Amino acid sequence: MNKTASNQGDKNYIEFEEKVRYSETDQMGIAHNKNYFEWFEIARTEYCHRKNIPYKSIEEQGYYLVVVEAFCKYKKPLRYDENFLIRVFLKKITPKKVVFTYELFTKDKKKLVASGHTVHIVTNARAKVCALPPDIVSKIKS
Amino acid sequence: MNKTASNQGDKNYIEFEEKVRYSETDQMGIAHNKNYFEWFEIARTEYCHRKNIPYKSIEEQGYYLVVVEAFCKYKKPLRYDENFLIRVFLKKITPKKVVFTYELFTKDKKKLVASGHTVHIVTNARAKVCALPPDIVSKIKS
Amino acid sequence: MNKTASNQGDKNYIEFEEKVRYSETDQMGIAHNKNYFEWFEIARTEYCHRKNIPYKSIEEQGYYLVVVEAFCKYKKPLRYDENFLIRVFLKKITPKKVVFTYELFTKDKKKLVASGHTVHIVTNARAKVCALPPDIVSKIKS
Amino acid sequence: MNKTASNQGDKNYIEFEEKVRYSETDQMGIAHNKNYFEWFEIARTEYCHRKNIPYKSIEEQGYYLVVVEAFCKYKKPLRYDENFLIRVFLKKITPKKVVFTYELFTKDKKKLVASGHTVHIVTNARAKVCALPPDIVSKIKS
Repeated sequence: MNKTASNQGDKNYIEFEEKVRYSETDQMGIAHNKNYFEWFEIARTEYCHRKNIPYKSIEEQGYYLVVVEAFCKYKKPLRYDENFLIRVFLKKITPKKVVFTYELFTKDKKKLVASGHTVHIVTNARAKVCALPPDIVSKIKS
Repeated sequence: MNKTASNQGDKNYIEFEEKVRYSETDQMGIAHNKNYFEWFEIARTEYCHRKNIPYKSIEEQGYYLVVVEAFCKYKKPLRYDENFLIRVFLKKITPKKVVFTYELFTKDKKKLVASGHTVHIVTNARAKVCALPPDIVSKIKS
Repeated sequence: MNKTASNQGDKNYIEFEEKVRYSETDQMGIAHNKNYFEWFEIARTEYCHRKNIPYKSIEEQGYYLVVVEAFCKYKKPLRYDENFLIRVFLKKITPKKVVFTYELFTKDKKKLVASGHTVHIVTNARAKVCALPPDIVSKIKS
Repeated sequence: MNKTASNQGDKNYIEFEEKVRYSETDQMGIAHNKNYFEWFEIARTEYCHRKNIPYKSIEEQGYYLVVVEAFCKYKKPLRYDENFLIRVFLKKITPKKVVFTYELFTKDKKKLVASGHTVHIVTNARAKVCALPPDIVSKIKS
């Protein structure tokens, strides 16, 4: 992999492949900018699965990771039916705040397609800010 | 309006204008087929508003109109930034089932763009089939 | 598999797994009805791949399979992070018209989640109706 | 309006109302984070309309404003059927780069719901970086 592309020393990352859906393209013929935030989200879901703490189970326990900030830098367009690689890093976690960063690459991992981050606060089902219990925190950062 | 386009004798309809968003186009340069079902939905929302029984308030009272069938026939493509007319008809309502039909026209009402229908059953918050109370039914069909 | 669920004798089908994205849910807590049409579309894409005639290459040759009709019957809700099976059948193909049908099942294939169809006409890049060349037709129905 | 909410001195802004669609909610019961980027986009479309240089006509002349960066800070959730106000500011424009900033408010303008920005570069139809002609630039910043 291009070293300049990923300068995140963090080992807390996982990666997987995705493919651009037809409905994700727009009339420019490329994937629309909003879809990257959907891909960031499936990356978080996948991250939690690999750490054996499915996000679904976090919500079932009454905790929500609400997005309070989202950012994406688009480097290269993605096209219909194109396979690409998503890499998601756990950048920071405290009981009340979680930060993930993301990198998308061409399938051969040679070119950075996009990068970004999302910041999450923790709330309960009534949308009140609260703290994740220690066991969830330690699983996520395991 | 072209009479052959709307052969629904039903007076229970309302109409309003919408516009195609950029993100609703795909690489064919036209509005993607899935968006019509989103437009059908905002038409139902608008219908209930005009009948003074906002769908939001129906859910707040514990009733859900779950989609069990959806159909759309696409006649003419819609393009980015194009204004069009949505007409929604209440086709049938019983305490346990509601059917809406829809017609989309070009802004000048001269050409039928698409038509379709959705069938809904009534459930409670635990997804059990139930019946709408008489006052909600009579408001919807007023 | 439940035999009553799939009474399509047709051998021309392929199947694969998908998973419900968080963004595909709505406030009812289930996958929104419009997403099924997106899943039908990725099923067509996958179908063409397995027949060695990627839909992308069909468009590159100047042919478009425009959706003129779409239908879905929803039997059981799908929830966030739920894996499900998509089965897509080539129901009919002529040089000017293609019909696909679809069945979605729970992961264990025991329950039918939804079924539907899409009808497509063939156009060129200028949106004029035209005919698919024989080699594309025969590959799709191979 | 809360002064601290909008500290952008720039007069180059326009504002209009939008409403949350049912399909834009997720299982948290609030508008999903990706939709804000769709709303930012309809705000740019509206901005260009008010300046008598519809974005559609910019593309027809062969220029594309490609998103290279997008950011959103989410302050308060938006719910189904909620009306809100979008304000869009032209923050910077050169022939090769355009920056818009956005603020979303509750309908009464009293509370800031979200804010963000998008950065755009100018390309031609073959995705090559190019420069907007002076008349388009001056219309946009008029």
